Amino acid sequence: MHQLAVIGAGRIGKIHAANAWAHPAVAVKYVTDPIVDAAEELASSVGAQVAAFEDVIADPSIAGIVVASSTDTHLDFSIRAIEAGKAVFCEKPIDLDLAKARSAAPILGAAGSRLFVGFNRRFDPHFARLHERLLAGEMGALETLHIISHDPAPPPIAYVRLSGGLFRDMAIHDCDMARWLLGEEPTEVFAAGACLVDPAIGEAGDIDTAKTMLRTQSGKICVISNSRRSGYGYDQRIEAFCSGGMLRAGNVRTSMVESWDEGGARIDPPQNFFLDRYADAYRAEMAHFADLLSGNTRPLVEYRDGIWALAIAEAAMESHRGGGPVRIQY
Amino acid sequence: MHQLAVIGAGRIGKIHAANAWAHPAVAVKYVTDPIVDAAEELASSVGAQVAAFEDVIADPSIAGIVVASSTDTHLDFSIRAIEAGKAVFCEKPIDLDLAKARSAAPILGAAGSRLFVGFNRRFDPHFARLHERLLAGEMGALETLHIISHDPAPPPIAYVRLSGGLFRDMAIHDCDMARWLLGEEPTEVFAAGACLVDPAIGEAGDIDTAKTMLRTQSGKICVISNSRRSGYGYDQRIEAFCSGGMLRAGNVRTSMVESWDEGGARIDPPQNFFLDRYADAYRAEMAHFADLLSGNTRPLVEYRDGIWALAIAEAAMESHRGGGPVRIQY
Amino acid sequence: MHQLAVIGAGRIGKIHAANAWAHPAVAVKYVTDPIVDAAEELASSVGAQVAAFEDVIADPSIAGIVVASSTDTHLDFSIRAIEAGKAVFCEKPIDLDLAKARSAAPILGAAGSRLFVGFNRRFDPHFARLHERLLAGEMGALETLHIISHDPAPPPIAYVRLSGGLFRDMAIHDCDMARWLLGEEPTEVFAAGACLVDPAIGEAGDIDTAKTMLRTQSGKICVISNSRRSGYGYDQRIEAFCSGGMLRAGNVRTSMVESWDEGGARIDPPQNFFLDRYADAYRAEMAHFADLLSGNTRPLVEYRDGIWALAIAEAAMESHRGGGPVRIQY
Amino acid sequence: MHQLAVIGAGRIGKIHAANAWAHPAVAVKYVTDPIVDAAEELASSVGAQVAAFEDVIADPSIAGIVVASSTDTHLDFSIRAIEAGKAVFCEKPIDLDLAKARSAAPILGAAGSRLFVGFNRRFDPHFARLHERLLAGEMGALETLHIISHDPAPPPIAYVRLSGGLFRDMAIHDCDMARWLLGEEPTEVFAAGACLVDPAIGEAGDIDTAKTMLRTQSGKICVISNSRRSGYGYDQRIEAFCSGGMLRAGNVRTSMVESWDEGGARIDPPQNFFLDRYADAYRAEMAHFADLLSGNTRPLVEYRDGIWALAIAEAAMESHRGGGPVRIQY
Repeated sequence: MHQLAVIGAGRIGKIHAANAWAHPAVAVKYVTDPIVDAAEELASSVGAQVAAFEDVIADPSIAGIVVASSTDTHLDFSIRAIEAGKAVFCEKPIDLDLAKARSAAPILGAAGSRLFVGFNRRFDPHFARLHERLLAGEMGALETLHIISHDPAPPPIAYVRLSGGLFRDMAIHDCDMARWLLGEEPTEVFAAGACLVDPAIGEAGDIDTAKTMLRTQSGKICVISNSRRSGYGYDQRIEAFCSGGMLRAGNVRTSMVESWDEGGARIDPPQNFFLDRYADAYRAEMAHFADLLSGNTRPLVEYRDGIWALAIAEAAMESHRGGGPVRIQY
Repeated sequence: MHQLAVIGAGRIGKIHAANAWAHPAVAVKYVTDPIVDAAEELASSVGAQVAAFEDVIADPSIAGIVVASSTDTHLDFSIRAIEAGKAVFCEKPIDLDLAKARSAAPILGAAGSRLFVGFNRRFDPHFARLHERLLAGEMGALETLHIISHDPAPPPIAYVRLSGGLFRDMAIHDCDMARWLLGEEPTEVFAAGACLVDPAIGEAGDIDTAKTMLRTQSGKICVISNSRRSGYGYDQRIEAFCSGGMLRAGNVRTSMVESWDEGGARIDPPQNFFLDRYADAYRAEMAHFADLLSGNTRPLVEYRDGIWALAIAEAAMESHRGGGPVRIQY
Repeated sequence: MHQLAVIGAGRIGKIHAANAWAHPAVAVKYVTDPIVDAAEELASSVGAQVAAFEDVIADPSIAGIVVASSTDTHLDFSIRAIEAGKAVFCEKPIDLDLAKARSAAPILGAAGSRLFVGFNRRFDPHFARLHERLLAGEMGALETLHIISHDPAPPPIAYVRLSGGLFRDMAIHDCDMARWLLGEEPTEVFAAGACLVDPAIGEAGDIDTAKTMLRTQSGKICVISNSRRSGYGYDQRIEAFCSGGMLRAGNVRTSMVESWDEGGARIDPPQNFFLDRYADAYRAEMAHFADLLSGNTRPLVEYRDGIWALAIAEAAMESHRGGGPVRIQY
Repeated sequence: MHQLAVIGAGRIGKIHAANAWAHPAVAVKYVTDPIVDAAEELASSVGAQVAAFEDVIADPSIAGIVVASSTDTHLDFSIRAIEAGKAVFCEKPIDLDLAKARSAAPILGAAGSRLFVGFNRRFDPHFARLHERLLAGEMGALETLHIISHDPAPPPIAYVRLSGGLFRDMAIHDCDMARWLLGEEPTEVFAAGACLVDPAIGEAGDIDTAKTMLRTQSGKICVISNSRRSGYGYDQRIEAFCSGGMLRAGNVRTSMVESWDEGGARIDPPQNFFLDRYADAYRAEMAHFADLLSGNTRPLVEYRDGIWALAIAEAAMESHRGGGPVRIQY
């Protein structure tokens, strides 16, 4: 039984703690959070104790650290945990500042670093199956890729202000998916953003709608569509156009019930909340982290993946602002 | 160019006349109908003349007769036309009276008789494709069959009164489809009917809802579901359960447009009117009749098919009335 | 925390034990099974002890008994547990012998009896949603009902021999679903069975294919389709034809991935194994049992539901054997 | 009955001639084509005569001219026919040279000019229904638009050489659709093209794959995806993301038949050939032209629409070549 500490008792910390609790090979020993009540509540629900981060990394029985704290602390906690010899499961993004994130390369990017970056969508069973079939070459060679990633409804403006902007907060997931599915690094990006959903998002200096086009060295093209509001639940689809046909992953519906009347059919909508939509993915992430702790695997998503996704997101932001295409550099 | 006469200028006569007009190998020379205005109107729209049935069959230039008159005249017109040496395309049913229909065997059922009975659904491209794949054994041997055949909305009560009842008017199509798809004659029928849609149909002595179960000698089972009112358009589906899997034909939708909002998706309904749903089938029937006139084919649906479908429908009606299973006899 | 004992450490006992373990309000204290190794293994996985049934019911700390043993012991264990004042979660069927099952009425059917019969499909979220919308009258009044319930592949012949036959082993689920959805007791049944899948099933005295037609007092009609082998996974669908349209629940697919090539689309199949297909339903059953133990609910499926489902299944078997319709009596 | 002349007896000329023949309000009097055999064959199939263009426009009985000749002659024939007072149904594009096409404005773009430009997709019933629902505001205000337009397989290289390139030959349809659906002129385009399908297309100086991004003054964004080869039939889909949800039009399948086996479902592919996919659209175009001839309508697609679509296509080509976004000018 690998002992874990969960850093951060917010929404995502709770998910990881519950998944750790349910996994036979790991247990949560500590929970840390600046809000003591939240830490206490989460700790008691999974049979853990509240502790300070310093004590957690000083405890030699702790094998793994789950960094689920606020984004601006991800990098610091990860570095200190890695330096203390722990394996780390760090929520995305590593940091909102690419230069700062890059500067951690000697530690987080070192050969043998056990840093697992939590890009959960790679662990979604639907996307994982698409990836597997794509790699197996079932439809031939990939040519172009469409990723649709629209949230059900915009987050609170307070969240928007701290989010780092649509590209680094939201599109970063899709930038990672694009790299993973393209099997090749994008070299150029062109992004068109707009504030069409909520003027308050524009007033907060952000956009709520974007189409991002990536090109790779070999000429593959990827289009990412982002919106902060779909109006019909979580719209998360992928279409991979290949030399032999197309592979696609559709939305997961809340139920398989339909009704038919004179207006036609009504079909239940896609799942509405990312914690429902990606419940299986979060479970699979924890299972992967348990495997990492057991020495059975390398991290499937590493420091360099975190940097790349951030570099693409930043380049997209720059393209959106400058109005022209931007070269992507790792 | 084969010259035809269309007997009956009602709804279905118009369809056949228009399809004949559009087909390069046939032309409509005459239209007959007791309602002279209707006959005139149809004749003028396809460049034909109005004539009496006697004159039609006396005209040696007439190669084929399309019997689209009222049901009670189908048998008589068909016999006289066959006796006059014409090929006949007779709308279903041959007659509502099985004994009477059987008595025409020496003429209509004679070897070489060119009587084509218009069971249009066999000519629908979707059902034809299912049939073809079923026969090719793509899914292995057929075991059981489900036929759903629900009308959008009940016909007028005046129609119900003259219809011969749900089994002979409506289920007869499905009895023919069952024989065609089973590839074997049903030997026993059990039918449960009810008046659930409209009490006026019950008052007219008929039912509006029925489930009919057919069994063949070898043990195959077919379930037919009929309703005079679906509430969502023409529900016409088939599922064929086979040793290797299932083949099915779904409904044809009025458009491929969908909308998605917070209630989920709305999908356009199935086509609502049989003349729309089976427009292709009626065209294919006329093309088949043209082939028959050209000597390139035998009728794909013959007198004996008309008798069998009627015999099954009558046995179903008897089962419904008696409450127990009934053996089917040709 | 309600203490439970799980009687039977087989496939379904393991499911219930795991669900109890994961549920915050219940814990498994004991596991019993004549095969000691199986009992030990299951007990250790959920932190329970192995015990004899007598000791289990003698322990006043035990609040609930999960009867997941072999079918022929369901009734006896349930009676003894109820007599000992325990709440019981009994796997279906109560017994294969209707007369014997009926004789337990004074105990199991007593007012206030806390016997929950595990008809899992009522707890499936898709069917539950269909039921809820049906009851809410969203599509008007129910007229007829189609239940398709085909297993992926036949069970071993050894299982078939002890199963009580297709109607009491397999169709019994659908008989319960029919009652639940019809909202009315079926009064008559007509069933046609056949051995089309595997001759060995016929040699074992059973059938592998059946179509069962139920009628209620008010004239509603239900058709149940059963097959021991679909060839394409677990085919579990419901269509409810109502005065205002149709409600249906479709199959749950293993993934939302599709591929498109010149042959058309390939879509991933329905789930293949009942423990996967109904994983959510089993979890919801345990949650319901926890509510029952907490005094927050009456059993949603009671002794009389178990008897009714069995009575319908037996009448269907009798109809199949006798060849005619059979009246159903509670 | 309006008398027409069909200029060009190739593939598309045949379609328009046949549709004219089948339409009650128009008749084909003349067919012209430099290949006399082709002209003769088409003329005889619709009861027309072969004639020279000069004679055709000199005949005062001719009300309408269908220009279905080779692209480089569209503009000249249209101008001469309009000058002769005829109504013109001109196949797209007006010309491959934007400057030359613009120079025809005084004649073709004059107020009252009866030039109908044949952008057939606007007449497809599925897209027309999407357009109608979009305009009705059913899903709120349009924000972004995705148009997927992939051909089944590449055309012959000889065709590619004369085509004007992917943007002016293929994407031009989608540029017109974008304008029609956006309800606003695109002001900027960014296009990324590649030769991924067939190196021979690259050697011929063209591309076979492109993603084109359009922006409008108000900030709406449209993405067009083009490929010369889908591998699975004609992929023609639209998704309109709106403030209240999404409207989309899916592919039209060749049949509604599906098969299910252990590998899952197989669904028949989209239609493979544009003449099948758009058969209804071509019929509707001719009906619209008949209405125009009867004085009941203005052309739904005019000279300025032809110019705009070409201007966008040219700007896209320039963007692809230059690597940056390009402003679009009418």
